[in-house]
Parts: sequence; C-alpha cells; structure tokens
Amino acid sequence: MKPSLPKGTRDFNPEQVERRNYLFGIIREAFVRYGYRPIETPAMESLQTLTGKYGEEGDQLLFKILNNGDFLAKADDTLLSAKDSLKILPQLSKRGLRYDLTIPFARFVVMQQHLLSFPFKRYQIQPVWRADRPQKGRYQEFFQCDADVIGSASLTYEAELIRLYDEVFTQLKIPVVIHLNNRKILAGVAELCGLKEDFTTMTAAIDKVDKVGWDGVRMELINRGIDASRAERLVELIDRPNLDTLREKLAGVPEGLAGLEEVDQVMAYLEDKPLGNELVLDLSLARGLDYYTGCILEVKARDVAMGSIGGGGRYADLTGVFGLKDMSGVGISFGADRIYDVMETLELFPKQVENYLDVLILALDAEALTGCFHLLRQMREWGVRSDLYPEAAKIQKMMKYADQIRTKHVLFVGEQERQSGQFTLKNMHSGEQQIFDLEGLRKHLKNNMVR
Amino acid sequence: MKPSLPKGTRDFNPEQVERRNYLFGIIREAFVRYGYRPIETPAMESLQTLTGKYGEEGDQLLFKILNNGDFLAKADDTLLSAKDSLKILPQLSKRGLRYDLTIPFARFVVMQQHLLSFPFKRYQIQPVWRADRPQKGRYQEFFQCDADVIGSASLTYEAELIRLYDEVFTQLKIPVVIHLNNRKILAGVAELCGLKEDFTTMTAAIDKVDKVGWDGVRMELINRGIDASRAERLVELIDRPNLDTLREKLAGVPEGLAGLEEVDQVMAYLEDKPLGNELVLDLSLARGLDYYTGCILEVKARDVAMGSIGGGGRYADLTGVFGLKDMSGVGISFGADRIYDVMETLELFPKQVENYLDVLILALDAEALTGCFHLLRQMREWGVRSDLYPEAAKIQKMMKYADQIRTKHVLFVGEQERQSGQFTLKNMHSGEQQIFDLEGLRKHLKNNMVR
Repeated sequence: MKPSLPKGTRDFNPEQVERRNYLFGIIREAFVRYGYRPIETPAMESLQTLTGKYGEEGDQLLFKILNNGDFLAKADDTLLSAKDSLKILPQLSKRGLRYDLTIPFARFVVMQQHLLSFPFKRYQIQPVWRADRPQKGRYQEFFQCDADVIGSASLTYEAELIRLYDEVFTQLKIPVVIHLNNRKILAGVAELCGLKEDFTTMTAAIDKVDKVGWDGVRMELINRGIDASRAERLVELIDRPNLDTLREKLAGVPEGLAGLEEVDQVMAYLEDKPLGNELVLDLSLARGLDYYTGCILEVKARDVAMGSIGGGGRYADLTGVFGLKDMSGVGISFGADRIYDVMETLELFPKQVENYLDVLILALDAEALTGCFHLLRQMREWGVRSDLYPEAAKIQKMMKYADQIRTKHVLFVGEQERQSGQFTLKNMHSGEQQIFDLEGLRKHLKNNMVR
Repeated sequence: MKPSLPKGTRDFNPEQVERRNYLFGIIREAFVRYGYRPIETPAMESLQTLTGKYGEEGDQLLFKILNNGDFLAKADDTLLSAKDSLKILPQLSKRGLRYDLTIPFARFVVMQQHLLSFPFKRYQIQPVWRADRPQKGRYQEFFQCDADVIGSASLTYEAELIRLYDEVFTQLKIPVVIHLNNRKILAGVAELCGLKEDFTTMTAAIDKVDKVGWDGVRMELINRGIDASRAERLVELIDRPNLDTLREKLAGVPEGLAGLEEVDQVMAYLEDKPLGNELVLDLSLARGLDYYTGCILEVKARDVAMGSIGGGGRYADLTGVFGLKDMSGVGISFGADRIYDVMETLELFPKQVENYLDVLILALDAEALTGCFHLLRQMREWGVRSDLYPEAAKIQKMMKYADQIRTKHVLFVGEQERQSGQFTLKNMHSGEQQIFDLEGLRKHLKNNMVR
C-alpha cells in the first residue's frame, strides 16, 4: 500500500517544526511576561459543548468522533432507513474535535470557577480542527495561540493586548496594521441607519468588504432584503468615516457614544509611547463571531496578501451559555499557521533557529568505533550537540552525510588518533581544520556551539 | 447547561501545564543534544494507515472520525438495516486519530524518503488517543515522547538510547530500573522449548508476569493450549536465568546466540562509565508489539507502583508495510503522563518551574490607573513579568488577589507616588518593603526575577 495523508492535513519536517517552535516561543514569552498563564484542554469535547456555538456553518465544519464499539446497535431504525444523517448524528457521535480555543476556555472557566482568581489571565497554544475545504493558507488542522482575560471589564486589557500584538509582530519583524473597532459603535450606526433589527446581517455583510468591496457590501445587503437607501446610508457612515461627524451623528445614540468613548480610553492608555506598527480605527471591521460586544481587533500583514493573521475582542457574556453570567472578558488570537507562511514568504526566520549538530564524529576504522562512541558520550556530557556516524564507512559517504545533515563540525577519529589523543576537527562552514587534544576540543566546542 | 468533559479526557490548569512543559523541556533538550530532530504529524490519519497495525484490540480502540456532510447518503442499505457496525464502518469513516507515534513516523519516512538522509534521527512529542476504559494512570488522550533512528542496524543506537534514558531520569531525579532483553534470545528460547510456532502466544504470556506471576504465566500458556511440560521448561529458562547456562543451552540455536551477542555488544558500548540507574537483562521482558525484532527496552520507576514509564526496541522492518523494505531502526518512548504522575507522587517538580509574576502593580487611587498602566508598559519592556490590578479597589481585595496569583512582589502606586517618583515594593515571600525610584526599581527587579 502506498501511504498518504488525509486531505487538508500536513506533516512537518524538522526545519519546519524548529521554525514553528521559534514562532511559538516568541509568542509564549510575551504571553508570560504580560502575566498570562497556560492552560490546555482536550482535543475531544462533548458535542453538547461545541454544537450551536459557531453558527450553522460551524456545526457543519465540526469533526465528529464516531462512538466506539457497536455504534449502530442503539440507533433508531426509522432514521437509519430514511438515511437521515442530521437527525441520526447524536445517536452515533457524542464527541467532536475542538473547533477553536475560546469555547473550551469558557467551559474550563465555568468548570473551574471556584479554583480560579479573577481576573483570570490564560494563554493556550494548541491545534484546532475544521472540516473546511482545503486551499492555500487554509488547513483542516491548524494551531491557535490565544490570550484571554476574564472577570474584568477594564479597558486596560484591550490596551495591553494591542501592545502585545505590536510587540510580538515587531519582534517577528512582520510589519502589520492593527485594526480596531467597537461593536457598540456598529450598534449605534445600525440604529442610525434603521438596521437595528438586522444587526447580524449588517455585520456579516460589512465583514466581507475586503473581498467584495463596498459595492459588493451594498449588493449583499440588498440581496438580503435591506432597503437600498439604508444600505447606502450605512456605507456612507462606515467607509472612511469622519470621526467628528460620526461623533455628532451618534450624539443621540448612547450605545454608539459609549463605543467611541471606549476607543478613546484605549487610545489614552496607549499614548505614553508610540506603537511600532500602525493602529487604525476601522469601522468596516465587524468580526463574524456573535459573542463580541465591545472593542474588536484584527491584524493584517502589510506586505503580504494573507488576510487576517490575528484577531480578537471583548465579550460581555462568553460563559453565560454554560451557566456563569456576567463575566466580561477580552482576548486575542495569533493565527500561527498564517504567520508562519508570511514569515516564510518574507524570509524572516533566523538561521540559528534550526538545531543542527555541533559535531559529527567519523570513525576512520572499525577498531575505533567503540572509542568513538565513548568520546561521543563525553561530548554530550559537555552539553555539545553531537552524534557519531554509526560505522566506519568510506570517507566520501560519511562526509556526504555530514553535509546533508548540516553539522557545524566533523571530528575525525581513527585508531591512531585515539592512541595519540590528538583529533582533527573540521569546520564545515569555513572548511578550516584544527588539531586538538581532548581538553582543547572541549574548550573550542564550548566557545563555538551552534546556539 | 452544565458543562462537562468527555470521560477519559482532562483539562490542565496553569500549574500542571507549567510542570508538564518542564518535563517535556528536559526530554526535548536531551533528544536534541543526542542529534534527534523534531517532526510532527497530523492528529488525523487515514484509517487505511492505522488499521491492522495494532492488533485486533488496537483496531477497536482507534477513535474514528465520522465523514463530514451527509455521511449516510452512500452507505449500503442492507448493511444499515442489518445494523452491521463493523462492515459499514469504512463507508462512514475514512479517518482516525493517531494511536501512537510509531506508525505515523513509518508513514512519514516512506512518504519523505527521497528528502531524508539516513540514518534519520527524529523525535516527536505529541498526544495520541485510545478509546481505552479510563482508569487511574490511563487516559484516552495522552502524550508520547518518542525518539527513533531509522536506516541503520548499528547497535551504537541501542547503547545511546539507554544512555539517554539514564540521563533523563537522572536529571528528573526519578530512580529507575532499565530492563533490557532481545527478541532473538526469546526466539532461541522458544526453539529450545518447542514453542517456535507459538511465539506470539509465548511472548504475550510472559509479558504478563508482572501482573500474574510465573504461576499465572504457566496457567496462561496451558490455557492457550501449550503443553504443560513445555510451559515449565520455558519458565525455568526465563525466570532468573543463569546467563552462562543459557549461553550453553543456546549453543545450537544461532538466532538465540545472535541475540546474546547483541546484548554483549551493547553492554560493551556502555562500559566506559557506569550508568546512574540499574540496567538489568530481563528475559521476562517481551513487549507486546509484533514489530520488535532485536533489543527491547522497558523502564520502571523504583519507588512507585506505576508499571512501565518508558519502552522501546529494535525493529527490522517497520516501513515494509508501507512499501519501503529493509529499513532497520530502533526507538524509545517516554510515557509522559505516567512520568508526570510519578513526579507528583515523589514531589519532584522544582518550585521555580511555575511562571508566576515578578510584580503586580496596585493602583491606590483611580487617578493613578493610567500612570500605573504606563509604568507597567515600562516594566514589561525591562523583561519583568508584570501585571496591574485593573482598578483601584480596596487594598485588602487587591492584596488577596496578589496572594492568590502568588506574585513575588507588589508595587504600590498612588497619585502621590507617581508625582514623587518614589515607589514602595513589597516582597510577598519575606514581607520586606523597600522604597525605590524608577531606576532603582529596574535594577532591583532585574536582580530579583522569579527565574
């Protein structure tokens, strides 16, 4: 049988994993320095926990786990013979794969509420799964890196998450634009345009402006039964808004004003030092998810067409659905797989990220092999990343292997070298060769390790 | 709705994740220093890849993913109405969750063979899933930490993997016994006892000796149709063997002698320096899995009844089933979840593993909050793990929070402190309070960080 991977899934080879670990490492370090602590949740959640949280499309994109054992035994005969996949589903499957990290986080907070101190700040770096149609930059298994704080409505958290985004992308050397909006402003605008009852339709439509342009948004609204004049009014208010005008127009709409004030307050928290990246108020930013209620954020790479590489926002009642009311929170997510792709495109990964060997020992004759292995043990005790070619093969063959695995040095050891205690070390980058005794070798390697 | 977790799965809170990361970090560092490089494979594999690789029981314990969309549409009507779960399965599910890291590794090697240099050394630290009945120390989702080298039959790798086990468990401060055996010795013994045709029955039976004792092994063999005198002879040979006698007895059995020689050679590679833990030749060690062909290894904790916390061995033909013949390899696995449990039992996790805050800023009055936030930004730029209580609450409330999140210091900042530039820092461990200006604070914190 010829092996293959399920579509939409990927293997990662050593270079890729090492680069991904570098990326995760930078994000994790920032999370920790900002006071977020890690949690992990299981890949499988009860379907009860997941279903109905991501809209109808989300429900379809959940991967469901077939019950173990004789899963048909208790299934309803009528539904089976009618082949009613939708209705039979709860009888065949009780578990699904995690679709994001936010709902599992909400479940975690509710289940552990008596053990947590609020505000509770957590980060989580784990894969999620979606049965999306695979395409460039979209995978069925991908990592999310989330930071959330729950149990406080303070806008200092919105401000710190913007700083965190700014800092991480600066460190990664990816120039970005951070888009900021507030759902309360959008609610105010909806009220102004007579679209209060159609808020979800409205946000879903303007969310697509990047793909379809403002004419497309107008069309979308009209197709969904919105009056053309209202659609026109909406687009006028949102597309490149004059903030002063907007403030005046929203004067009679308390919710809209509250949103503007929140944005002002967040800006005030940030005014002590300029950000390294651009922060823009973008009224066209809507974020699809229903649970956002205040500030919303999205990050786009400046120099690469890649869509959003991060996003988040404030939610007033994420845990309400699990029975814990009035827990305001705010969180952001890094889209690690897309960030990885951007960094590959812009060649931003430093060379030293990959953990190649410091030294590969080459045994020049079969008699030397045991001695080489003992020397290898010694070098590993020194903390040197080292290995031994496992037999005394032809020198060309061993040097070819040394090249392929990109070791920094090779050390030649034959029976003669073992007896004299003098070893030749070759630097594979410079081609330089030097002769050392054991102690000289230790000192030289300590000062010339890859990291 | 009251949220819950699927049985057999777990959440990990911050303390647990930080301890797990410490454990993984030590294992990973050793893997890298020994020249192993990371790969990752997807959680979902084609059922074709997984099925038939883990025995009949393994097939039943695979978690299967229901096909997306209208999964019943193309299902066979007859099988459906007969409720034949087993036969209908391939029509409803094409994917399963990874059951171990070895088969995915074999698939990876075959698919990427033209890009790899052999011997190829890889490590892999990822979760696996098994629909086992949950019980103490057994979970449906758990992590494996594997290192394998493939493409060489050299026994230096057996020796280095024993060193690696020894080093990691020494560093973790877990006293262990490393059990070593060789399947060729077992094959030789089987030949001596006339059990050549019953090799699998024999290894399955002796594998249970820890649980059922030698009398139990005898019973098991007899119950499975093995002649009582043969069973007796087997137990005599294997239980506390006299090695010299065994060598004599195996004199006419080349395969058995070859196994003994391999063990001798591995021991010779290790004789330059004593191990920190005990290494024993244990002829009762069989390892259930069929693919092992040479040396086999198992690690048990000395002071805790926990079963095996690591194991591995040599396989002559792991990739053959995927079409790549004659690739000898050897690998080991760390049972991370059990090791974690052992370390909890023996209280082996160092205190500094948990990344608590260095400083929590407390705003003494509402006017100071913005200034506090700007000071927080400054401290994070210094590299200090820091946070701000998000409002000027009552001091008792803020101090209670500081206690709960176990910050090392709190910094008191009111409008007065802001204007004078003199801040009071309290060490929460010692209770000591000191007054600093900004530069003094920076220096003091740099020298007193948690890590």
